[in-house]
Amino acid sequence: MDYKASGVNIDAGNEVVRRIRSLARGTYTGGVLSDIGSFGGLFTLGAGRTGETVLVASADGVGTKLRIAFMTGTHRTIGIDLVNHCVNDILVQGAEPLFFLDYLATGRLEPEVAVQIVEGLTVACRENGCALLGGETAEMPGFYQDGEYDVAGFIVGSVARAQLIDGKRIEPGDVLIGIPSSGLHTNGYSLARRIAFEAAGLEVGAAAPWDPDLTVGAALLTPHRSYLPIVRPLLASGVIKGMAHITGGGITENLPRVLPAGTRAMVERASWIVPPLFAWLQRAGDVPDVDMRRTFNMGIGMILVVGPEDASVVVRHLQAAGDPAASIIGSIEAGGEGVSYR
Amino acid sequence: MDYKASGVNIDAGNEVVRRIRSLARGTYTGGVLSDIGSFGGLFTLGAGRTGETVLVASADGVGTKLRIAFMTGTHRTIGIDLVNHCVNDILVQGAEPLFFLDYLATGRLEPEVAVQIVEGLTVACRENGCALLGGETAEMPGFYQDGEYDVAGFIVGSVARAQLIDGKRIEPGDVLIGIPSSGLHTNGYSLARRIAFEAAGLEVGAAAPWDPDLTVGAALLTPHRSYLPIVRPLLASGVIKGMAHITGGGITENLPRVLPAGTRAMVERASWIVPPLFAWLQRAGDVPDVDMRRTFNMGIGMILVVGPEDASVVVRHLQAAGDPAASIIGSIEAGGEGVSYR
Repeated sequence: MDYKASGVNIDAGNEVVRRIRSLARGTYTGGVLSDIGSFGGLFTLGAGRTGETVLVASADGVGTKLRIAFMTGTHRTIGIDLVNHCVNDILVQGAEPLFFLDYLATGRLEPEVAVQIVEGLTVACRENGCALLGGETAEMPGFYQDGEYDVAGFIVGSVARAQLIDGKRIEPGDVLIGIPSSGLHTNGYSLARRIAFEAAGLEVGAAAPWDPDLTVGAALLTPHRSYLPIVRPLLASGVIKGMAHITGGGITENLPRVLPAGTRAMVERASWIVPPLFAWLQRAGDVPDVDMRRTFNMGIGMILVVGPEDASVVVRHLQAAGDPAASIIGSIEAGGEGVSYR
Repeated sequence: MDYKASGVNIDAGNEVVRRIRSLARGTYTGGVLSDIGSFGGLFTLGAGRTGETVLVASADGVGTKLRIAFMTGTHRTIGIDLVNHCVNDILVQGAEPLFFLDYLATGRLEPEVAVQIVEGLTVACRENGCALLGGETAEMPGFYQDGEYDVAGFIVGSVARAQLIDGKRIEPGDVLIGIPSSGLHTNGYSLARRIAFEAAGLEVGAAAPWDPDLTVGAALLTPHRSYLPIVRPLLASGVIKGMAHITGGGITENLPRVLPAGTRAMVERASWIVPPLFAWLQRAGDVPDVDMRRTFNMGIGMILVVGPEDASVVVRHLQAAGDPAASIIGSIEAGGEGVSYR
């Protein structure tokens, strides 16, 4: 009995590692000291730093959006989703990404699938100026169905302590600025799949009822966008008092994570147009408003909290930089907690 | 249709997050600035650093050792395995851990299981002086069997650039020092399970044929040990030229990862006693020698490469510090590549 007989193919794994290493090299930034295949990835912060550097780290997965990838056989966008989700999660504290690592687990390693995923990771890493510094590809016979896998991402970024964004300066009267999402991003897929494929009985290759130019599969695979390019120019100015990445739990659960005690957010529901995808999901699934808002991003993927005096200049920057639909969507009020909608 | 109907229980998830946060606080070290529940975990490197700091990062899983946890209902050791594996992976480059994050994915979240795993993570984090800075708990209906999960760990450590251990100084005549493993660690479980439970037909609760004091389940769950406590006192001295963590692929595939081109390792097979577990697996599974050595650690979990002039002092330190079986197990020779055994 040898190891291959037990379902683990070390040679196929090594071949994948070789291809991944070559892809990852294309993402290397000035700080990378090591090559993938070392035990740990090495990243230098450089010498002669004077200020205090804060590392910001986050771990995340793609959730059951993976099942759309399995249904369509398209895996490249999953890698993009994962990196962009992680980039946004540290951006909200003012951090720019330094490096990323992934964990990819399958039942039986399909090299072509692994390479597609990693290609997506590297595309997004390059776009975010982030090095793919390492990762783990695990072949776990019997843990995942044939053709299935799970993938997790881990990101580390840095921010000068003086520029850390932590929400502590947020006060009543501050303004909420919403930046559009590109779709469901990576949240709410268990419910969305149930509505689309069970309640509505859609086929993955059919035209999407909410956007007939796309198939259901392609529409649901639209990658999670990165807000780094559009937000980065605002970081040094200090105008952003708080920032919330609208992930699982929606605005309802994510925005309060940055609010100081004794403040609540009032979100004006009429201040943005909920994209047709969300309206269709609500109708087809007969989902109560409160569950929609607690599950989906409803078209807003990132919220900035700024002082009222800075709001118009920030909105103008966002609109000019590529988000014409960025707009004021509410404000901070005194007392209470959480998010109210009106 | 609401989110709970789709198989995701946000309230149970929030309860787990509360319990995890409390456990994680017990691991916080001086560098931690944030609390779990922030989007990203914050870790300060402090101000006024003069030298060049290198971050060392690694991602890993526990592999199919998880199945032993599922069979026995014991999940705490999985968390210990994961942290110690990651700590060792960055220790080999001279790094001491700063912080750790986990990714835990299940089909249906069982709070008691999640908390057991995280308790294990926090026990090991505290023992290694490493903060559990964050993580992600993902409930993915339909991805994992009932009662099953996967878990990945991400670690970041740091080392002064001048003390980075990279194997470049290794030369012919250098000595290999082996430090014992505590068992299979986290590798070779697909083969080991097949031998124990299929070929030999053992029950998980039966006495282990290789150690009648333990059940098969308990013996196979023995945690991966951390080499940080015993190796840390050697890091500053610079005597360690290279270090290999013996994980998947065994000595055969891991030791060459630190050897410079034009050198090979000669390992003396008679220089240590292979623990009864490995001998039993080979006999019960009729596994060829070459596959044993390419799959299991064979009783050696960490190998240090040192100059011949330093070998005896290093061995004496290891023996005095708690590893009486640490010993010279071979040497570096000129020419060729990889590992030879004699």
